Amino acid sequence: MKILVLNPNSTAAMTDKVARSLVPFAAPASELTFCNPASTPASIEGHYDEAASVLAMLEIIRDEERRGNRGTVIACFDDPGIGAAREIAAGPVIGICEAAMQAASILAARFSVVTTLSRSVPIIEDLALRYGMERRCRRVHAADIAVLALEHDPEARMVVRDAVCRAVAADGSDAIILGCAGMADLTGWLSDEAGVPVIDGCLAGLKIIEGLVQAGFATSKAGAYGWPRSKD
Amino acid sequence: MKILVLNPNSTAAMTDKVARSLVPFAAPASELTFCNPASTPASIEGHYDEAASVLAMLEIIRDEERRGNRGTVIACFDDPGIGAAREIAAGPVIGICEAAMQAASILAARFSVVTTLSRSVPIIEDLALRYGMERRCRRVHAADIAVLALEHDPEARMVVRDAVCRAVAADGSDAIILGCAGMADLTGWLSDEAGVPVIDGCLAGLKIIEGLVQAGFATSKAGAYGWPRSKD
Amino acid sequence: MKILVLNPNSTAAMTDKVARSLVPFAAPASELTFCNPASTPASIEGHYDEAASVLAMLEIIRDEERRGNRGTVIACFDDPGIGAAREIAAGPVIGICEAAMQAASILAARFSVVTTLSRSVPIIEDLALRYGMERRCRRVHAADIAVLALEHDPEARMVVRDAVCRAVAADGSDAIILGCAGMADLTGWLSDEAGVPVIDGCLAGLKIIEGLVQAGFATSKAGAYGWPRSKD
Amino acid sequence: MKILVLNPNSTAAMTDKVARSLVPFAAPASELTFCNPASTPASIEGHYDEAASVLAMLEIIRDEERRGNRGTVIACFDDPGIGAAREIAAGPVIGICEAAMQAASILAARFSVVTTLSRSVPIIEDLALRYGMERRCRRVHAADIAVLALEHDPEARMVVRDAVCRAVAADGSDAIILGCAGMADLTGWLSDEAGVPVIDGCLAGLKIIEGLVQAGFATSKAGAYGWPRSKD
Amino acid sequence: MKILVLNPNSTAAMTDKVARSLVPFAAPASELTFCNPASTPASIEGHYDEAASVLAMLEIIRDEERRGNRGTVIACFDDPGIGAAREIAAGPVIGICEAAMQAASILAARFSVVTTLSRSVPIIEDLALRYGMERRCRRVHAADIAVLALEHDPEARMVVRDAVCRAVAADGSDAIILGCAGMADLTGWLSDEAGVPVIDGCLAGLKIIEGLVQAGFATSKAGAYGWPRSKD
Amino acid sequence: MKILVLNPNSTAAMTDKVARSLVPFAAPASELTFCNPASTPASIEGHYDEAASVLAMLEIIRDEERRGNRGTVIACFDDPGIGAAREIAAGPVIGICEAAMQAASILAARFSVVTTLSRSVPIIEDLALRYGMERRCRRVHAADIAVLALEHDPEARMVVRDAVCRAVAADGSDAIILGCAGMADLTGWLSDEAGVPVIDGCLAGLKIIEGLVQAGFATSKAGAYGWPRSKD
Repeated sequence: MKILVLNPNSTAAMTDKVARSLVPFAAPASELTFCNPASTPASIEGHYDEAASVLAMLEIIRDEERRGNRGTVIACFDDPGIGAAREIAAGPVIGICEAAMQAASILAARFSVVTTLSRSVPIIEDLALRYGMERRCRRVHAADIAVLALEHDPEARMVVRDAVCRAVAADGSDAIILGCAGMADLTGWLSDEAGVPVIDGCLAGLKIIEGLVQAGFATSKAGAYGWPRSKD
Repeated sequence: MKILVLNPNSTAAMTDKVARSLVPFAAPASELTFCNPASTPASIEGHYDEAASVLAMLEIIRDEERRGNRGTVIACFDDPGIGAAREIAAGPVIGICEAAMQAASILAARFSVVTTLSRSVPIIEDLALRYGMERRCRRVHAADIAVLALEHDPEARMVVRDAVCRAVAADGSDAIILGCAGMADLTGWLSDEAGVPVIDGCLAGLKIIEGLVQAGFATSKAGAYGWPRSKD
Repeated sequence: MKILVLNPNSTAAMTDKVARSLVPFAAPASELTFCNPASTPASIEGHYDEAASVLAMLEIIRDEERRGNRGTVIACFDDPGIGAAREIAAGPVIGICEAAMQAASILAARFSVVTTLSRSVPIIEDLALRYGMERRCRRVHAADIAVLALEHDPEARMVVRDAVCRAVAADGSDAIILGCAGMADLTGWLSDEAGVPVIDGCLAGLKIIEGLVQAGFATSKAGAYGWPRSKD
Repeated sequence: MKILVLNPNSTAAMTDKVARSLVPFAAPASELTFCNPASTPASIEGHYDEAASVLAMLEIIRDEERRGNRGTVIACFDDPGIGAAREIAAGPVIGICEAAMQAASILAARFSVVTTLSRSVPIIEDLALRYGMERRCRRVHAADIAVLALEHDPEARMVVRDAVCRAVAADGSDAIILGCAGMADLTGWLSDEAGVPVIDGCLAGLKIIEGLVQAGFATSKAGAYGWPRSKD
Repeated sequence: MKILVLNPNSTAAMTDKVARSLVPFAAPASELTFCNPASTPASIEGHYDEAASVLAMLEIIRDEERRGNRGTVIACFDDPGIGAAREIAAGPVIGICEAAMQAASILAARFSVVTTLSRSVPIIEDLALRYGMERRCRRVHAADIAVLALEHDPEARMVVRDAVCRAVAADGSDAIILGCAGMADLTGWLSDEAGVPVIDGCLAGLKIIEGLVQAGFATSKAGAYGWPRSKD
Repeated sequence: MKILVLNPNSTAAMTDKVARSLVPFAAPASELTFCNPASTPASIEGHYDEAASVLAMLEIIRDEERRGNRGTVIACFDDPGIGAAREIAAGPVIGICEAAMQAASILAARFSVVTTLSRSVPIIEDLALRYGMERRCRRVHAADIAVLALEHDPEARMVVRDAVCRAVAADGSDAIILGCAGMADLTGWLSDEAGVPVIDGCLAGLKIIEGLVQAGFATSKAGAYGWPRSKD
């Protein structure tokens, strides 16, 4: 059972980090592919970066499905191009924001999100609304660090930890979602530090997609996720 | 990995039907327990039946977790006692309404629900609201049959089929959720009849719980799902 | 006109306190019964305690209606078992959370709730949503005391007072609802301390139920609150 | 205990009809005043008619409170001037739309409204939203008759009956609210015809206001309903 | 193209200030009329002041339309009488709250409002809800000054500035709306001080109404904004 | 004052049609540029077509702003790439869905949308939600024609007319929005046929953008619409 975990930005180090975090949790039958486009922005920090990543990302999804891929996780917390990805894929597709919020809403009564930049806060709030999670999500916080700082700045993880602890104290949430794929390696440590479950959407997304594929579920082609229409 | 699938009503035939539907889809590592209380109502058709089932159901969850159970699916579409079950369990717990709606919202842009009795319609609508699915769920339809008719009335499946087809035509939904555990065996046939994915929450719930357990997720004890308080 | 005020927990001292608070306000024609089950938890502090109280509570409602009871107030702020109670009763039934919020929304533009434990905050928020009060209710605060502290800890009332005053200052609400039946005796004093109306749902509920009974209104049996179905 | 039931339009026949409907249900201690301004539109059929009625209506409320009035029901289903009325009154004030919706939400899981003209439908929908009743109110229907037809057209009651029965059949609601004070005399007959409780907001409003006054509740002067500010 | 900018209160100095602020931005073809009634409250600070202003305001709109007026801006942030004004006018009508929120939602992802008195906060929140802006509007703040202080108190503008800066810091909004027509002259200065666009609804409203008139749009008379009904 | 009206698909005939519809309504000071990318899909019928259009569209916006463009209308009813466009532009940007809904909500109490394909219905519903128009928008209807049929199929306009008339009759809306830029030439005729204002978002968008530019408003760079971040 081939499963694609696709990082839409072009930073291979982040893709590798996600891979290291997920491999120990993969189902025995899963054959995981981790990849990223070569030419997209080095990080996705707003709508423009999303727009500049989506076509290359869709190309990969299409190619991988031709090679037998059965389901896809989009490993960027803005869930870029999720509708388009569902149109061009037969197998199920999820973004890590939706995945994390689905998992959190089973495990906790209320959660908060800690992301990188404040400019992403309204984007994530809008996703929460689209997913119907606006009432369970108490607040979206920014740690105020650039996405790539998570790759090379040794202070970044402490900044995230402080933001997570502040969020727990201020919001009374009983779970925290990490709002960036680049934080995927921090969940265990942060759960200990914060005293509540800290959830990474990459892992949540992998398990959801594995489960849907095992159950035989495919994307509905009867509505908004139907195959793109030919123009002839 | 022990997983409990718990039918809160006392009709063993329904428990068996659910078991037959799920066993082929279980993860290799899963050791499934299917059971139901002995003394609860024969079917859950409203708030009173829920209230009359919940304590016996919680007893079983508590016992099974003592015996090593790791995660629980409550196989009744009213998701009875879900909050209490999360309080008394360390492992993740999901009801089949929430499970089906989470799966449907990945596979389809809009879904409708077909349940048994019209008295259950507002109950399911209220659940959709609680789960943030009120905008993706176009409508909840009643097939106008008793729950137990699904066990012994040979006409019941045709009544459900007609309701499913009417729902697709009227709502423009691209997936249908079956709003009763007693319909768990009809998904394949109904998907063919309706031309859209037809989703059973028992299967969705099993895969979600398996995934959460494999990922190492547990119910947060830091908030509303904390262990019940001692009164001393 | 018999009216039942039912405390679902087993602490008779709390039932008595509610009785003392309500008796002076009863309508002349009202014949009030105050009672509590004998075997339920000593306080209701979460979903499990609710589940453990609801059947005994329903038994009393059924019995009292056979003895001529005409309407029922459930004196616990989680409004436990309200749907089931409406199914088994011909007369109107209200919980004190819904009652307090209805009264507050007539008297004030915005209100806040002060309850006992933080674990109850999401439960009350979910009720506010169900009752459509999520926009008028600015926030639900926890005083961080156990329910039974209200019965035996002389400091408890000062803790509640401080929480009420903080809520008024922080939220700009023009009324406060006390989120626990065990606070029923504090309204007069707290209104003076806080400078805004402080509302107890037991009193609000009594007056609403008296009014509905006097008006000849009964629970609709045509929908979700129809009598529980026989299983034969 | 003086209670004012105020019809904001100038049609005394409608005021009298409301009086005849309510008097049998008044509390023994209530001293009811029914009245209407002399110079306002003969019926309130839209925003302009509301605007043209509100000052005269407020004048009466102010005068009556000076004469000892303790609480007020505004007997027009658009709830005109409700915020202003709460500003100038010390006692509680309710409009019949809010009153009917509060009562219906206790008695039934879902309700529909039947009003007179289609132009009032969005007005009532907006009120339902303001009162948080937009999810319990399945739909607002227009019987397509003028308000004054209820006073002199013998066919009008049959038109209303047909609209009520159609609403029950189409919406699956378990209660109907009559969306015009001029229908106050039809509730008993229509309940029999429709097979569900049919609720008039005048009666609901009277009982709510009586209850609030008996309980000692007054309008909060600490927020949006504070006394109008002097301009000096 | 005649356009009416109507201040519903009777303070001519405020009308003049609005005029001075708008004239430089008027379209070449626009012939602006600025006016206010003579007998309404000197400022609109709550529902009663609205009620006391609306009929005189409607009179002017009707008169001006007879004289060829083509569109109307109601220059009070409570948007008083907006429904009635749309009923009696053929041309488009907007209030400055709705206008400012429409403009802000194009220019910014999230905005906050700074108004005068805390009693206006729930009124503006209710407007935001009615306009569907409740999710983009992070918060409504009160500067805690009387409306007329903006006319004669030299400190008032500094109080507003401080409130604006606090709102930007606390809410993370990327635009601020000034919640009172009396602040119309402060936008340029405050934008510099706050570092985000500061929006006045008078200007936004003028440009929206000019645009709608130029486009040939008129108020729909087919629904709730149809001409007031004759009572004969 | 240069204004860009940008059709994101590559069908020049549609761009020309939009130009012919708008030119008569342009402000005297406006210098309009109408254009479309050369390499994007011939029509935008779903998420994939949006994704395949957005980068080329952004390129044009960036180029035009370098040439002095002051404001932009994106002439596709899915409002593709609106967030990214606001990030890369200093001047205001609007999509025609948001523009039409803003205009409609001033002119009418309730509106419905008539678009081309049923697959676009959930996309437009999601936009309505994002814009806070989900309560004023009664329903989104599909005429069930391909976008390009509007360019070459002589029957297409009658199909649209029938859908518009059905929508008015079924929904009781007092305005109709045409949900495709390819219908921009039909508004006058359809308003006559339907008896309610029929609104095209291209015209609404042009007037809104002209107004914002005249008023000196620019996109806020302080939040989610800040310039794309450099990755160095």
